[in-house]
Amino acid sequence: MGEEVKLLKTWSSPFVWRVVWALKLKGVEYVSVEEDLSNKSPLLLQCNPIYKRVPVLIHNGKSIAESLIILEYIDGTWNSYPLLPEDPHDKATSRFWAKFADDKVLPSVWVAYLKQGKEQEEATVSALENLKYIEQELRGKKFFGGESIGFLDLVLGWLAIYVNVLEDATGLNMITQDTFPCLLEWIQSFTDLPLIQENHPPKDKLITKFQVLVESYTAKNAS
Amino acid sequence: MGEEVKLLKTWSSPFVWRVVWALKLKGVEYVSVEEDLSNKSPLLLQCNPIYKRVPVLIHNGKSIAESLIILEYIDGTWNSYPLLPEDPHDKATSRFWAKFADDKVLPSVWVAYLKQGKEQEEATVSALENLKYIEQELRGKKFFGGESIGFLDLVLGWLAIYVNVLEDATGLNMITQDTFPCLLEWIQSFTDLPLIQENHPPKDKLITKFQVLVESYTAKNAS
Repeated sequence: MGEEVKLLKTWSSPFVWRVVWALKLKGVEYVSVEEDLSNKSPLLLQCNPIYKRVPVLIHNGKSIAESLIILEYIDGTWNSYPLLPEDPHDKATSRFWAKFADDKVLPSVWVAYLKQGKEQEEATVSALENLKYIEQELRGKKFFGGESIGFLDLVLGWLAIYVNVLEDATGLNMITQDTFPCLLEWIQSFTDLPLIQENHPPKDKLITKFQVLVESYTAKNAS
Repeated sequence: MGEEVKLLKTWSSPFVWRVVWALKLKGVEYVSVEEDLSNKSPLLLQCNPIYKRVPVLIHNGKSIAESLIILEYIDGTWNSYPLLPEDPHDKATSRFWAKFADDKVLPSVWVAYLKQGKEQEEATVSALENLKYIEQELRGKKFFGGESIGFLDLVLGWLAIYVNVLEDATGLNMITQDTFPCLLEWIQSFTDLPLIQENHPPKDKLITKFQVLVESYTAKNAS
């Protein structure tokens, strides 16, 4: 039976890339549809009427929204290369850190790099505190998944890709060798993977995007 | 093999009751440990150091935090009475609405009933909009799970229990027959279940708790 898999995406979304990596790891053939978020397609609005955001996966005509739920769907649908651990407690632990990564780590890191003033100061404190938990979780392991990448590596993969770019774009240096040795080693191991070398957003374009964001916040603060 | 299951809980948390119902549905014997959130136990702080909140499930010495993750753990560990649907797309749909229920429905309903002024007005608009999606999801079904209760019924169960109490405590009437006929029918069917009749927070105590909360917000606004 021919399968039809379509991914509604944008080139720069960290939530999209984890889905791309999962599909590639599983060897699932799919069609990419690039969305213009300033002019959302009728398909995106129809498939994700509540959040109206990417990624959306459409499999044989049925859509799934929200990236962590898409990852679970992909893992439950295509059995090659399991993403989540088999053991129920290990599975719960991966899900706990994935939720923590999206609820706490991502927003605090984002604001710490891209905003200004008091908002940035507070976010930096939170970001460093949140990243320390991630550092602890990595101690003694090559990847969150052990010897090879799994669910949580994909969920936190944006950190490996975007942090260097954010540091280049903003001149800030938050993740240092002294404080986050395991995280830095993981970033190196993760970005060295052929899968990631071949599938990531173009860095120059990302740097420009982040510089524009920083300038727009600065201009807003100055006006 | 003797299993040791412990639930760290409070009597009034909507996040705790869904876990209680899941354990009862599965026929899992467990020990309840009531937490005083103004003086958290060393066990709670040790098991959930990041969020420091209930529920926490401890199974044979290993702890799991975050109620949706606990529900998934319970469903993956004890096979009697499956909570999530088998089909991957139906499973993704249940997870999508569960996340929506916790991210959007619960906070908006809570603020709509318990806060004052502009904050309350805005939350009421959101709550009504969010509840309309839930109403649509229920159309033509007795329970979210179909003929019997499942994952999403447990996740939204607080709505069935707390909304009547919130209406009694505040005098507000948001969920009317005209606008939410399916939701009201579901509330009736859900609260009629022997499982729910036998396991719910004491209503008088809840009304008092909510009245105290409303008064404290009113006093804060007036000061």
